[in-house]
Amino acid sequence: MPGEFDLIEWIKSQHSPSAFVKVPQGDDLAVLDWDAGDLLLVGVDQVLDGVHFDSTIHGPRLIGRKVMNRNLSDCAAMACLPAAAVATVALPRGVGLEYARELYLGLREAGDVFNCPIVGGDTASWPGKLAMTLTILGKSAGIAPITRAGAKAGDGLYVTGPLGGSILGRHITFLPRINLARELASTGAITAMLDLSDGLSRDLPHICRQSGVGAILQARRIPIHPDAGELSQRTGTDPLEHALHDGEDHELLFAATRDPGLPGIVRIGTVLQEPGVWIEHPDRRELLAPRGWEHSI
Amino acid sequence: MPGEFDLIEWIKSQHSPSAFVKVPQGDDLAVLDWDAGDLLLVGVDQVLDGVHFDSTIHGPRLIGRKVMNRNLSDCAAMACLPAAAVATVALPRGVGLEYARELYLGLREAGDVFNCPIVGGDTASWPGKLAMTLTILGKSAGIAPITRAGAKAGDGLYVTGPLGGSILGRHITFLPRINLARELASTGAITAMLDLSDGLSRDLPHICRQSGVGAILQARRIPIHPDAGELSQRTGTDPLEHALHDGEDHELLFAATRDPGLPGIVRIGTVLQEPGVWIEHPDRRELLAPRGWEHSI
Repeated sequence: MPGEFDLIEWIKSQHSPSAFVKVPQGDDLAVLDWDAGDLLLVGVDQVLDGVHFDSTIHGPRLIGRKVMNRNLSDCAAMACLPAAAVATVALPRGVGLEYARELYLGLREAGDVFNCPIVGGDTASWPGKLAMTLTILGKSAGIAPITRAGAKAGDGLYVTGPLGGSILGRHITFLPRINLARELASTGAITAMLDLSDGLSRDLPHICRQSGVGAILQARRIPIHPDAGELSQRTGTDPLEHALHDGEDHELLFAATRDPGLPGIVRIGTVLQEPGVWIEHPDRRELLAPRGWEHSI
Repeated sequence: MPGEFDLIEWIKSQHSPSAFVKVPQGDDLAVLDWDAGDLLLVGVDQVLDGVHFDSTIHGPRLIGRKVMNRNLSDCAAMACLPAAAVATVALPRGVGLEYARELYLGLREAGDVFNCPIVGGDTASWPGKLAMTLTILGKSAGIAPITRAGAKAGDGLYVTGPLGGSILGRHITFLPRINLARELASTGAITAMLDLSDGLSRDLPHICRQSGVGAILQARRIPIHPDAGELSQRTGTDPLEHALHDGEDHELLFAATRDPGLPGIVRIGTVLQEPGVWIEHPDRRELLAPRGWEHSI
């Protein structure tokens, strides 16, 4: 039976040298040369079989891509550039070396799109199901990070694309909005931003709470993805509900002092002084209760 | 049933402000101010129920401590100082908020010993068993990192303490040798170093391969932990075998041009020019086959 060191040797052979990486994977820690003046951003996300993917449906290449892209989407949310990543995998025993390589190649494929090298990791096997994590390091690279905390009353609220129904496939194939985020931040108009991972109705309150503001959404302005319409036919739930509450769109939600004037951006509401998140329908205004994804403990 | 956001709110309330941490956990990524001139070290380790701990025996506080300490031990291996950490936890559904808090407090307790703040993380629940990861960021802080690749023929081989039998308890209660590692590296005599996590017979070959050298150990010089003796009475295996092959000692193994002259350091062998790892018994010399821990895939 192959062992972790077979995998580690193979991964080392996949490494492409970089001046930034002084000591690559294969030592106790990787050593990176950090540019003076760059802020260091760091975060981590995991994907678990049966929660974030289904290993009976999704191949290992797609699973690897998803955990990398979830983290790259966090870079987009902060308007930073990815710098490097480290990953862990808990492999079900007996899954085989080829499967493990495919997971790694998924990470690599998604990371390569944004020049994000994988500089370390930890592999283990266990009697449990597949679990992967990826930690992303980002660098400010000349643009101040955009937090969730800067929204002001009167700012517009915008999203970078249509929402809802990601479960039909986009949750695993989305492309992180890093380039668009850097363009947006360069306008100087963006006051707060995040990526929509738990659903609009659950993520918007994060901006509101951390900025000390409220918000009102215009129901008719919320861009609804065709997937939300398709899903609606199966669930009987209104497509707008899917757009408001489904998770894993990984579009950006941001507040801005003016329309940044970039293609694909849609204004969906306005930041309010008073706390509370509202939605305005043609005939009524009501509080928007968060119904997106939350892990129960 | 409590949710991840209850836990996240509680963790945020535990945060102690630091000038180094510009944006703490609670945003998409944490933002850190990195000192110009500091090399950035990064690595990740995971602990899995049934492999690295047994949740029916080990309480959550101890489990949290272990995953932090495994990573701090990697800092020791590189002679760097820990700077910050991010963690993930995959919680078995229904385990409860108090259990999750205890895991976090274990991380914190172990991190606080070396002033290592936890600046971010990801919490999920799933139908599987408990899995945790921790990613450590280290800084060189005036001392060049010690890799596995610098050992030269004629160097002495040393360990920082007695080996074997860690499964009796030390695997989960060890204290990372960060302070000692910094002292060792300051002598200028250390040419290669790692922490013994998979067992001497499996870890020494890493130094040999990466340094392009061989090694010979003196069997009678290898310091044997009393736990190895106690375990021997149960297993019938010679205590020396436990010292050579048991994992998770988390003592440092290093090569040095001269005895660094620090208390507790024991010379166990010599670096050779020719590849191959040997052990010299009073009556014979033989190749030392790696028998430490390896995850099969």
